[in-house]
Amino acid sequence: MSLLRDLEGVGADRFRGGYSRHVFTDPELQLRAWFTEQAQRRGLDVEQDRNGNLWAWWGTPGPDAVVTGSHLDSVPGGGAFDGPLGVVSALAAVDELRATGFRPRRPLAVVVFAEEEGGRFGVACLGSRLLTGAIAPERALKLTDPDGVTFGEAAARAGLEPERIGPDPDAVSRIGAFVELHVEQGKALEPLGRPVAIGSTIDPHGRWRLTFVGRGDHAGTAAMADRRDPMLPAARTVLAARSAAKAGTRATVGRLIPVPGGTNVVASRVDVWLDARSASEPGTREAVDEVIAAAQQAAADEGCEVEVREESFSGEVAFDPGLRDRFRGVLGDVPVLPTGAGHDAGVLAAHVPTGMLYVRNPTGVSHAPEEFATDEDCAAGVRALAAVLEELAG
Amino acid sequence: MSLLRDLEGVGADRFRGGYSRHVFTDPELQLRAWFTEQAQRRGLDVEQDRNGNLWAWWGTPGPDAVVTGSHLDSVPGGGAFDGPLGVVSALAAVDELRATGFRPRRPLAVVVFAEEEGGRFGVACLGSRLLTGAIAPERALKLTDPDGVTFGEAAARAGLEPERIGPDPDAVSRIGAFVELHVEQGKALEPLGRPVAIGSTIDPHGRWRLTFVGRGDHAGTAAMADRRDPMLPAARTVLAARSAAKAGTRATVGRLIPVPGGTNVVASRVDVWLDARSASEPGTREAVDEVIAAAQQAAADEGCEVEVREESFSGEVAFDPGLRDRFRGVLGDVPVLPTGAGHDAGVLAAHVPTGMLYVRNPTGVSHAPEEFATDEDCAAGVRALAAVLEELAG
Repeated sequence: MSLLRDLEGVGADRFRGGYSRHVFTDPELQLRAWFTEQAQRRGLDVEQDRNGNLWAWWGTPGPDAVVTGSHLDSVPGGGAFDGPLGVVSALAAVDELRATGFRPRRPLAVVVFAEEEGGRFGVACLGSRLLTGAIAPERALKLTDPDGVTFGEAAARAGLEPERIGPDPDAVSRIGAFVELHVEQGKALEPLGRPVAIGSTIDPHGRWRLTFVGRGDHAGTAAMADRRDPMLPAARTVLAARSAAKAGTRATVGRLIPVPGGTNVVASRVDVWLDARSASEPGTREAVDEVIAAAQQAAADEGCEVEVREESFSGEVAFDPGLRDRFRGVLGDVPVLPTGAGHDAGVLAAHVPTGMLYVRNPTGVSHAPEEFATDEDCAAGVRALAAVLEELAG
Repeated sequence: MSLLRDLEGVGADRFRGGYSRHVFTDPELQLRAWFTEQAQRRGLDVEQDRNGNLWAWWGTPGPDAVVTGSHLDSVPGGGAFDGPLGVVSALAAVDELRATGFRPRRPLAVVVFAEEEGGRFGVACLGSRLLTGAIAPERALKLTDPDGVTFGEAAARAGLEPERIGPDPDAVSRIGAFVELHVEQGKALEPLGRPVAIGSTIDPHGRWRLTFVGRGDHAGTAAMADRRDPMLPAARTVLAARSAAKAGTRATVGRLIPVPGGTNVVASRVDVWLDARSASEPGTREAVDEVIAAAQQAAADEGCEVEVREESFSGEVAFDPGLRDRFRGVLGDVPVLPTGAGHDAGVLAAHVPTGMLYVRNPTGVSHAPEEFATDEDCAAGVRALAAVLEELAG
């Protein structure tokens, strides 16, 4: 897909492989500049809202708009498709619609949400959460990245006004419907031999940060018996997450940071992030409670303290059934799939009719360089998105 | 201690607390510039050797020199004393000797060794190991920091010639005796009520890097049963290190890096560093073998691969008994202490008569911001070092 090729190399991560494009870092700012230029080249009017989300308007911004888009940021060492595919497919769908002479009767916008992955400040879908009021601006402004830079500081450096960050009811009220196209995460379409699916639900999911505090010391001279080493309860928490992930629940520790992190140093603190998801909210809560109880016991056994914070939680999302029926009306009998992955569409769904389209990922892998979609399937995704936008805005 | 106060704030780590002054980074280069200026102000001739160690000469550089010094780099988030105390005490001892009208009969040099902590490139005492040929330059040049920068690249940027890095027999042959003053690591002097000790031995110690490789994926969509998550064997290795640390052995995992390290990402790789020490070499090896066997089993259980590399190993060091007797001759009946901490003096001891002095640390903590020595004890350390240098060079 030629638009996606434009982005190759931006934010390539030579240490992790794949891409690291975190919100308001150089690579992500490059992608934003690229998007703005592409949109302007198409005669779309680009605006950045008060929360750092970009909107490119076809027609006068206004109520009852049909909005499509996704995000350009990535997880650390992520794949090329998660996020950018939805943005470039939206631009390509605009091109297809124009080539047919289509003129939207409703305003149409392509949106790029900020910090969807939470890869820098820890809270996923931060841009859409701020927009819709799902997170308090006071809390968002204080979120920090691994270097201790706050979201407020980073936003200010990127040209936003920190005092204006927060709920934007005017912007939300303009959205008549939202459609997000995304690469498939998981491998349901491959065995079905189908390139495109419609989204049904998003599993309840959340993130918890467990901070273990012990006593830092020299690894060669601190007697074992005197230690209060937070790495021990952190390790037991990793194992507890695996034990807690029963039947249909997923519980993962993918991020763990010992502080100070020296080879010859007993850590003074370890931060552990738990990601948990299940088909039901009680199932998710139960798994998380089990991990937290194990973490507290492990901390107590080592003479450490542990603090647990819920960084985010999203209940089950069911996408709009009326919209889904209209998608099937134009796309035919395509598969309808649930997902365990969160999206800005999941945040928007609480406020406006929302739907999703997935493009087949033959590896099933996501958030890793192996994430993939063929050119043919990407083209099928663009056609499906164009058809859906025509149906909604025509 | 006024010279030490000059260094306050340089490399302060606002995330970890304490100081992060890694070799050839801005803070460490600032400290080197400070040292050079201080030495020149005293009329000492400063040279950087081919491995990045700094030498400040009182008198003509030549054979049979009495050399003292330590290092200016730190562990991540380290204390203010580990390293710098030995360097500033050496300069202060030169001042004391000069104030008494002392003129050394042997050349006297103050040395600053590069990358003593291995905080950036993973191998402790890198500067003294290269100097003495204890590590092959081919291996040292390829060591990488967390950003993937090689030691060769970093050294070149700092003005060294990578092709000249390696054993420097001429520089070693000039050293007639080496004395390193260091803050105490551990808490033996406090209960004895004594400000200064003489070093006897360094425990055998080493570092091993265990790299677990699995398969990265999306934390929300990868089924638990399909996972090959390297965090699991990494966590079991942390626990195995604790179990293996029996009677007098210390085994520590203070550094653990999941890659890519995203909250919503199953890691594809985890690097774990094991630091192990014991009063005997077989005791150390036995503990390490036990941890490695556990790591291999845990990796196999999760369908992961594990690669183990010994990054460094140092056998027991016994400091020169003749030198120790001369120290006691001028210092009187001061305590003589073994240590579990490695030092450049341990590397030098295989080549030249070497001794150490320790200054009381009332907290016992090291490699952490709590590391401490009172002004009075620092002054006692300077007096002891001056007396020893006078004895050796007079």
